[in-house]
Formats: sequence, structure tokens, C-alpha cells
Amino acid sequence: MPEFLHLLTSTEALNRFLKSIPESAQTVAERIPAVEALNRVLYEPVTAPHPLPPFARSTHDGYAVRAADTYGASPSLPAYLKLIGEIHMGVPAKLVVGPGQSVLIHTGGMIPDGADAVVMIEDTQVIREGEIEVLKPVAVGQHVLMEGEDVKTGETILEAGMLIRAQEIGGMLALGVTEVNVARRPRVGLLSTGDEIVAPDEEVQAGQIRDINTHTLSALVSQAGGEPIARGIIPDRYDALYEATKQAHAEDDIVVITAGSSVSARDITVDVLGACGKPGVLVHGIAIKPGKPTILAVADGVPMIGLPGNPVSALVVAGLFVVPLIRMLMGMKRSALVPKVSAQMSINVASEAGREDYLPVRLHITEDGLMAEPVFGRSNLIFTLVRADGLVRISPEATGISAGTEVEVRLF
Amino acid sequence: MPEFLHLLTSTEALNRFLKSIPESAQTVAERIPAVEALNRVLYEPVTAPHPLPPFARSTHDGYAVRAADTYGASPSLPAYLKLIGEIHMGVPAKLVVGPGQSVLIHTGGMIPDGADAVVMIEDTQVIREGEIEVLKPVAVGQHVLMEGEDVKTGETILEAGMLIRAQEIGGMLALGVTEVNVARRPRVGLLSTGDEIVAPDEEVQAGQIRDINTHTLSALVSQAGGEPIARGIIPDRYDALYEATKQAHAEDDIVVITAGSSVSARDITVDVLGACGKPGVLVHGIAIKPGKPTILAVADGVPMIGLPGNPVSALVVAGLFVVPLIRMLMGMKRSALVPKVSAQMSINVASEAGREDYLPVRLHITEDGLMAEPVFGRSNLIFTLVRADGLVRISPEATGISAGTEVEVRLF
Repeated sequence: MPEFLHLLTSTEALNRFLKSIPESAQTVAERIPAVEALNRVLYEPVTAPHPLPPFARSTHDGYAVRAADTYGASPSLPAYLKLIGEIHMGVPAKLVVGPGQSVLIHTGGMIPDGADAVVMIEDTQVIREGEIEVLKPVAVGQHVLMEGEDVKTGETILEAGMLIRAQEIGGMLALGVTEVNVARRPRVGLLSTGDEIVAPDEEVQAGQIRDINTHTLSALVSQAGGEPIARGIIPDRYDALYEATKQAHAEDDIVVITAGSSVSARDITVDVLGACGKPGVLVHGIAIKPGKPTILAVADGVPMIGLPGNPVSALVVAGLFVVPLIRMLMGMKRSALVPKVSAQMSINVASEAGREDYLPVRLHITEDGLMAEPVFGRSNLIFTLVRADGLVRISPEATGISAGTEVEVRLF
Repeated sequence: MPEFLHLLTSTEALNRFLKSIPESAQTVAERIPAVEALNRVLYEPVTAPHPLPPFARSTHDGYAVRAADTYGASPSLPAYLKLIGEIHMGVPAKLVVGPGQSVLIHTGGMIPDGADAVVMIEDTQVIREGEIEVLKPVAVGQHVLMEGEDVKTGETILEAGMLIRAQEIGGMLALGVTEVNVARRPRVGLLSTGDEIVAPDEEVQAGQIRDINTHTLSALVSQAGGEPIARGIIPDRYDALYEATKQAHAEDDIVVITAGSSVSARDITVDVLGACGKPGVLVHGIAIKPGKPTILAVADGVPMIGLPGNPVSALVVAGLFVVPLIRMLMGMKRSALVPKVSAQMSINVASEAGREDYLPVRLHITEDGLMAEPVFGRSNLIFTLVRADGLVRISPEATGISAGTEVEVRLF
């Protein structure tokens, strides 16, 4: 406990960090086809150029009528209406329905002038050519989708900062909005440091380890809506790291350094992050596990994050800090809900008070419901996360979770 | 209730459908770079070509020692060890640690021959050049990550049918696996029918409506891992629809028709789906709302789905049938857990017994927690779904949900 006593919680750290980022850090607009806008964030509101539906439509197969002509109709006393024609799909309804008249109409067909309701076909009988019997009355507007019932002209249909899903694409296209301004994806510069690190396609010598973090973080950044920029593997020397970091700082919207694992390598990272601009390092060390040595900085308006080098820590911490940051820079308004599933903890798990733990778990479907089984493994073992379905957060107040307790699992 | 009495439930319908699809419908392998494999499904298992870590590594900054030399060490009675050098990062450890000797080592550094444990730097003191005091004993293996502790040579690290996430990419690259066989994305042919439907970039005339379904379904198919193939807007005529459907049937892995809304247009769709091959239509009508007129068919091994033309129904039903189908054709093994959040229903909602309802809801954060507010709107109004965050399933047994009831919201 004493070790974590003077560190910020992850929430405190995130708030301090996000509050120090100026509005100028937000990305600008980019105009793209609406059909390609899935998972992008709207830069500005979209208003309806015309009502939807653009004209009154029938919701059933039947006859367009004047409702008043059907009042009191019943199987024993039907209303007799003249059938004056048919509404064809996809062309303007040119017929006008007068008193005592009806027109054959299909689902989705345009309600003709004069008519104000539709009688369903099952509530009618054709008695002779050119005449129908209506067996049931309809009210004004019945079985009719009114013009503008979905949206009206000028209505704000999508708000700035919205995440665009399948239905938003459909809604825009329904209104002929085929291009849209979205927030440009934030460029996230990813630097891996460590003299022992080599690229995955290189032969490793004894003492060398392949770079994992650039690629796990690239995947995470892409999923969160950012554009990962791999800035390579940098030696554990101040000058080399400073130079590479300054370049990322000049060209990218966010700079992420995964630090070498040794204390001296971490010291270099914090020095470099502090030297890139004002105000510099805001948070150094957070009361979480994994992820304690995390560094949060802002340098002349550019947010910068120093992540622990261990691949598990790097990926977990990036989920907590890099993902919300990317969303903020795109102006994403509605806080994204973290998808969770409920499960029972399979065994007792201990935790240190004062520290927030993110425990990888694997889910099993059992007769008693979903069971969350902790995947133990040191945070330098990437396969710990391969074996896991999600993370269970253990709050700083708790000293553990008992077997059988209902927990929420944040799915990866 | 009577209306839905003889219809299959969605689970029965899905089971009948998936069981009728032959194994030959599964997509084949495609070899791609591991860094591009995010959200793809593994076609075959991946085994470890070498152990990970490939050599024993230190988990701390400190001194590599022979554990036996430290037994009994304490601040009052330290163990004195000769310091014979330093392990440099990224190069083979050439030193050999003999009895009474120690070597300076950094986190992640390679454990030299002869050493079997690491003393943390904070448990030592340098008394003079070339000698250290150890103040605390270490056990064999302490502060050491053993060779193969994460994975062993030949171990199956990823199983066929797994969805590839950030950590799977990291795990493969850590082992130098830079290419991987994934299941080819299933091609999903999307046909929209309706004489009143025009493309979104066309000017609409009175009586015409822009195509929504092709684009909402394309987005859904992409997210589920499939490749959407837009096959255009087909007139409501048997010959035209049959010809376009046969072409999709010949070229695509899955065929999806969104039917025109009128009864006659739906009749054409079921006739065409029945004429494409054996066994033909398996399910016609399902006890769900929205989505009752759904058609499920298999034609000479190709799964085919007829969706209702209403955009809300089409998107909801596609989530229930097209998404699991795409996953099955890619051989996805672990059933994807549906991401849900718990919320309280804000008002009483009625439902018909015998029918499964999918109710769009909007989530609000309140002092009492998350509140789910139903978004009412006819299923032909796409903006019903724009206003919603997810769906609440009401089971066929229920006749509604009372205000305040805890419900699970399936997020879009």
C-alpha cells in the first residue's frame, strides 16, 4: 500500500491529462463519401435537406380513400366505393380521390391527392369491376406514413461528435446526403525504445527480443479511430530518443513512447517527454497494476504518453489513456459505453488496497452461467492477454474479490 | 398471439438454417501479413517456432547471481559478491557467473550462464569498485523470466477459428510469425428490390424513395467480417429478380435480398429464393418483431436470406441471421459474446406473448444508474435506430417489461 499511496488514481490522472490539452489539439474536418463513414466521428451537425418520407406513403397493401367515406362501415353494412385506378410504385400519384372513390395502393405507395387514409386489402371485397366494399372504417391518417414523420426539413438529424454506425449511414443516404464532414483520424506516433528490441521480421540473436508494442498499439489505435504511425525502434539513448520524439511531436497529433524496461531507460523517456515543450510532464506514476510507471505529458499542445515497455502493461494502459484521448481529439461527444458482460469470479483473487487492478480473465460458459477465470501471468508475457477475453477492474478500495462474486468483464 | 403461434422462434429458425448449410460453404484460406490480420479469423492453428522468451531474462534492474551465494544474507550480515561485469542489452551474455560472483543486469537483460537468480538493485549496496553487498537472499529463479515461460516451442499458440485481436497480432510477431492464413471474408451479395427505390445519389421524383438497405447492410456485413457486394436495385419483376439473384448465387458466398414491401413483391422474393436450388426455402416467417416476414433458404449449398424491406427490420434481422452466418462461414469457433450493458427500463413496455421483440432503446446516465428509454417508431423509420443505442430483447414468454426492471441492452 505505501508504494501506491502518493500516486494518482487512473481517473484523477486521466482528468488532469485531458484538461491540460488545448482545444487546438482537436483534429480538423475531412470530407468523405457517406458510404465510407462507418466508425468515423461527425465533425459538424447534419440537417435534413427534405422531409422523410418525402411524401405520404401507405403502410399496407389496400385502397387509398377518404376516411369519412368509411365511417360506420361493417361486414353487414359495407361502404361501397368506386375504384378509379391504381397507384404504381415509383411514379407520382396523378389520380385524385374524390368523395365515394378509392384507388388501389401497395405498401410504400404514394398517397394520392384527396385521400387521407388507407383501408387494408383484408378489410375489403371486390364485388364487381370498378367497385369495392369496405368492411371496416378507417380514421384519418390510418395506415399512412405522413410526409416528414421520420424527420422534417431542416431538422438536425445527426449531431457533431456522433460516432457513425450503420443506421447513421442509412439515414444520411435516405436524405441524399452522400458526402459528410468527419473529424480527421488523429495521427498517433508510436515509438518503441530498447536496445534489445528488433523488428518482427528480423532474425533474433541471443539477448534480442522482437518488437510487440508497435503492433499491438497500432491495432488498438486503429480500432479506436486513430491512424497509427509506426516510428520505429529507437535506441535507449537520450539524443536518439529526443530526435525521434521531436519529429513525431512535429508531425503527429499524439505521441506514444513505450519505454525500455530498465529504470535508466524510463528515466530517459521522462526526460525526453519533459523536454519537448510546455507544460511538460503532468503525471509520472499511477496507482494501477499493470501500468504504474505510466507518464502523461503535454508539450506545446501535443499530448504525449510514456507507456511501460511490458506488452501487457502497454496494451492495458493504452486502453485507459490512449483510447479516450483519440476520441477527445475527434470531438467525440457521447462517452462510449464500455461493452461489458457479467460473470462470476471463479476463485478468490487478492488485490492491494489503494491500487486499481486490471485482471485479465477468460470466460467459460457453465451451467451456473458465465464464469470469469483469472489468467495469471507476469505483465511481460503477451500470451497472458491472448488467453484472456477481457479485463476485470478491481477498485482501489477493494482488497480482493471472493469466488462467486458477480463481476463485470470489459471485453477486449 | 394466434398470428405468431405457428411461426418458429428466432433460435429455432437460426438452428434449422445453419444446420442445412453444408461444410463446403465455408470460405477457404487467404495468406496475409500478420500486421493486417486485425479482426480476421484464423484458418488454421499457429504453433510457436521457438520458445518465448527465447532466453532467460531479468525482470528487474539488479545483479545476476547464484542464488546459493545469497542464502542467509541480511542487512546486518550481507553476502559479499565480486562484480565481474555488466550484461549489455541486445547482445549475447558472454560472461559466466561463478561462485561468489555477480554481474550487473538490466530489466529484460539476458541471464548469463552460471547465474540462476537476480538480486534487485534496491537489495544491494556497492561498497567498493568490483564488489557488492547483498542484503537479502534470493531463491533459484527469483526475478527471472524463464526461457519458454510464456510459450514453448511447438505449442499451439492460436487456434483455428479464433478472432484475431491486438494481442494475437503481438503474440505472432513476438515469435516472428509475420504471415498468417486467415479465412477469406465471405462475399455477401446484397440485392434491394422495389420499383420505387432509387440510388442515394439520384434525384428523387415524387413516389420514389432512396435505397437505404444496401448501405446499412454493407456496414453491418463489413463489421461482421464479410465483404459486401452491392448488386444494385432490382425491379419488382420475377424475371429481373431471378436473373440478378442467380448471378449473386453463382458468385457470392451468401445472398441477401431485401424484399419490396408489398405482398406481391414479397411473393416474388420467396418464389425466386425457392427456384435457385435445393433444398430451397427452409423458413418463411419468424415469431419476431420486427422481422416477421423473414425468409431463410439454402440453394445448392449457398445460404440465402430474404429480409423485410423496412430498413429497421432489415438491420435488426440481419444482426440476428446474417452476422452469425458470416461467422460460421469463416469457421469462427468461440461464439462471440454479444456486448451488453445493464440498464433500467424507464417505462412499462407491452409485448405480445409468443413473439420475441427487439425494442430499440436510448441510454441515459442518471443518478440511479443507466436508464433505457424505448425509442418508439414504425419499422420503416430509419431514424428510430439513429436515435437508439441498442436493442432490448423481450422474450416470447414475456408480455412486457415493467418500468424499473433491469434489462440487458445489446449495443449496436
